[in-house]
Amino acid sequence: MASSPVPGEHDMDLLFAGLAAQLPPGVVIDDPDILESYRRDRADDPKAGTPRAVARPTSAEEVSRILRWASANAVAVVPRGAGSSLSGGSTAVDGCLVLSTERMRAVAVDPVTRVAVVGPGLLNAELKAAAAEHGLWYPPDPSSYEFCSIGGNIATNAGGLCCVKYGVTTDYVLGLEVVLADGEVLRLGGPRIKDTAGLSLLKLFVGSEGTLGVFTEATLRLLPAQPKPSTLIATFGEVRKASEAVLAICGKLRPAMLEFMDRATINAVEDMLRMGLDRQAEAMLVIQSDAPGEAAGSEVELIAEIVGAVGAAEVFVTTDPHEGEAFVVARRAAIPAVERLGHLLLEDVGVPIPKLPDLIDGVRAIGAANEVTIAVIAHAGDGNTHPLIVHDPEDEDETRRAERAFGEIMDLAIRLDGTITGEHGVGRLKKGWLPDQIGPAAMALSRRIKTALDPEGVLNPGAIF
Amino acid sequence: MASSPVPGEHDMDLLFAGLAAQLPPGVVIDDPDILESYRRDRADDPKAGTPRAVARPTSAEEVSRILRWASANAVAVVPRGAGSSLSGGSTAVDGCLVLSTERMRAVAVDPVTRVAVVGPGLLNAELKAAAAEHGLWYPPDPSSYEFCSIGGNIATNAGGLCCVKYGVTTDYVLGLEVVLADGEVLRLGGPRIKDTAGLSLLKLFVGSEGTLGVFTEATLRLLPAQPKPSTLIATFGEVRKASEAVLAICGKLRPAMLEFMDRATINAVEDMLRMGLDRQAEAMLVIQSDAPGEAAGSEVELIAEIVGAVGAAEVFVTTDPHEGEAFVVARRAAIPAVERLGHLLLEDVGVPIPKLPDLIDGVRAIGAANEVTIAVIAHAGDGNTHPLIVHDPEDEDETRRAERAFGEIMDLAIRLDGTITGEHGVGRLKKGWLPDQIGPAAMALSRRIKTALDPEGVLNPGAIF
Repeated sequence: MASSPVPGEHDMDLLFAGLAAQLPPGVVIDDPDILESYRRDRADDPKAGTPRAVARPTSAEEVSRILRWASANAVAVVPRGAGSSLSGGSTAVDGCLVLSTERMRAVAVDPVTRVAVVGPGLLNAELKAAAAEHGLWYPPDPSSYEFCSIGGNIATNAGGLCCVKYGVTTDYVLGLEVVLADGEVLRLGGPRIKDTAGLSLLKLFVGSEGTLGVFTEATLRLLPAQPKPSTLIATFGEVRKASEAVLAICGKLRPAMLEFMDRATINAVEDMLRMGLDRQAEAMLVIQSDAPGEAAGSEVELIAEIVGAVGAAEVFVTTDPHEGEAFVVARRAAIPAVERLGHLLLEDVGVPIPKLPDLIDGVRAIGAANEVTIAVIAHAGDGNTHPLIVHDPEDEDETRRAERAFGEIMDLAIRLDGTITGEHGVGRLKKGWLPDQIGPAAMALSRRIKTALDPEGVLNPGAIF
Repeated sequence: MASSPVPGEHDMDLLFAGLAAQLPPGVVIDDPDILESYRRDRADDPKAGTPRAVARPTSAEEVSRILRWASANAVAVVPRGAGSSLSGGSTAVDGCLVLSTERMRAVAVDPVTRVAVVGPGLLNAELKAAAAEHGLWYPPDPSSYEFCSIGGNIATNAGGLCCVKYGVTTDYVLGLEVVLADGEVLRLGGPRIKDTAGLSLLKLFVGSEGTLGVFTEATLRLLPAQPKPSTLIATFGEVRKASEAVLAICGKLRPAMLEFMDRATINAVEDMLRMGLDRQAEAMLVIQSDAPGEAAGSEVELIAEIVGAVGAAEVFVTTDPHEGEAFVVARRAAIPAVERLGHLLLEDVGVPIPKLPDLIDGVRAIGAANEVTIAVIAHAGDGNTHPLIVHDPEDEDETRRAERAFGEIMDLAIRLDGTITGEHGVGRLKKGWLPDQIGPAAMALSRRIKTALDPEGVLNPGAIF
């Protein structure tokens, strides 16, 4: 088959100028200095491409024009929220148009219906703040909540610390406005808690990482403000005892947080915060109960009995939310603390929770074999771990070993009946492992759906597929 | 285009005999007496067709052979769990093969991972019982839980009474084995609480009503046993006050049950159970808190304050679970109680919860205009209502008026930004209204996906589409 002639630079300039002319001034930008800042996301991929332009639309109608133009001209579009992807989901490809939703940040809270209608560029923290003004709460809380966007959260089905009790992003998405690759604007769902009318298109778009459509509005479920939590901190001389404690707790109770830090993480955090953490502990759990009223205190007492029976080295309980918050801050500080040791490759593997100890042991062995430091934090109650692989990007050999460990950890998770990504998405960094996890039949079906929705393949090429 | 010749009866006999020969004896049945019992589901559609055969496979491999044969020969397949659909989702079409999963009822509870791996024909109550043996709980609780199957629950994304706090079926489906129309066997998800690897194919199949594939196994999330609830019963002189109470409660607290019965329902239940319900009340709420330990009692006390402030006529509170259960039994008895007044057309419309009073008022007006009795029960905390339209199927004129009311109630729900089905599915009875709710773009996209997955259109033709 003869290939069509590759358009020259001049033709491409004309093409992009044609798009700019269809949109209000300032929507399409091609200033090279500005383009540079849209090449990478938080995965900081050294192989990131350079976009030919960035579009910063302000409405679904503008997004529709952009995508109609892209499909008609087979131009790759990389959708981008706040650029906080850890798996390269919004890393630019050469010659693409980056479609940033950063200017679409409306937020309207309806306290009676208990929903928020938001633009995709709104930050998670901005939504939490808007909800709190009405005594309401948007639970999903990725560690990046202060600088990640709701659109990105929906695109990756983001999680966080409260998921162990309150679920992940998909559980809070009641409605979406989505622009398809051909520019069609679709409204799915709405402010209805239960709705099973027709195929679950809404849920298909959640977690689709910009490959099926671009979100232009979301209707999100809110809950009443979270009751004040009580907190329990437990340290363990062995990782396996901490895992046993996790299983024992989750079999009986529903904690609102159940976080794990290994020895390397504890020491990195202690280096940074100097709060008196036990540097000799092999594992530490940070557990919260938000049962209403006095019940939170009695629930952490029950948890104290359980971790004591399993053999915790030290147990500290507090019903004072501020005192408890200091330990949550310590847990949230884990990534920046470990980052002080070097550049991080941030994993996101998950396993069925009884396999947590095997995963953590295996990660240690992978670190040792590859001679790289790997600190492990985990949303332990969900079996979702973040091994943090430390390396010096200037050191080619160490970088190669870190990258090998990154892949070996995913291989291990798959062997343990786990997942390569619990909450960050596949993006570009993990797509090589996706077929090993989900198998050829699910890959083929995913491609059938992708082709049905985006026949030109313009939406986020290189992500997932 | 010349049409292909219609196969004669003899050809069809040969075709079905060919299927039977590929399967163990007893899987394919064509005894007319048995076929008769597979024509209808609980929607009891007088226009139900007659299947040419029923297949009762026992494995994914047998289901795969059946569907491969069906796609190759363009034979319609109507999947069926326990036949409890209220919207005609498993009503037979003439000449079809009914594929019943009733023999696939394995159940294995893994108490450490806190999942159950089940066959699609397992009844919801059987799963609850198996989980309870390990101190665990499968929350989704449709009123039909004693005689509905898990496969059907997944196919309709079924709900129930506890959804107001614990969510619907999709929130508990971690993994599915699905056979596609062409016989391909697909495994999606697994025993992992958080997993965002690849497109959300799993969620697309939940609620697909047998139109995209046949489930052959499900991996379901279990929770620790529900704490013993406290119960509050409140009666109201006006429906609007009951609705106000619902909004006020849900804005502050998370009850585990929040059910509504109108005056017609209260009286029907009282006629049947003689438990001393207030026949003069315009509305009654049955509310439970399952906060752990003593907190349930204090949570219902808070609820008592709220309903008192809104103007409840009478409030009764009990922390005794058995005493509370009597009122839950009364609520669950609503459908059989109203059924004693005549044949029911059972609605399932939902609205954003602030619009509940408008919906209930509107349903009353529709009942009056069409001169039919309509009793209303509701999962009020979810905005999901079941208007029960009473009629005598022997009375042609009344039946016509009841059917008109059925449609008018869906029109009303759509006008109120609601849904035609909160938890029963579209099936065959409601598909005429689906385009009005979701619009032409979502219909077109749904058809694109249906065609991508089932190009021959063999799976459950006439349902949804």
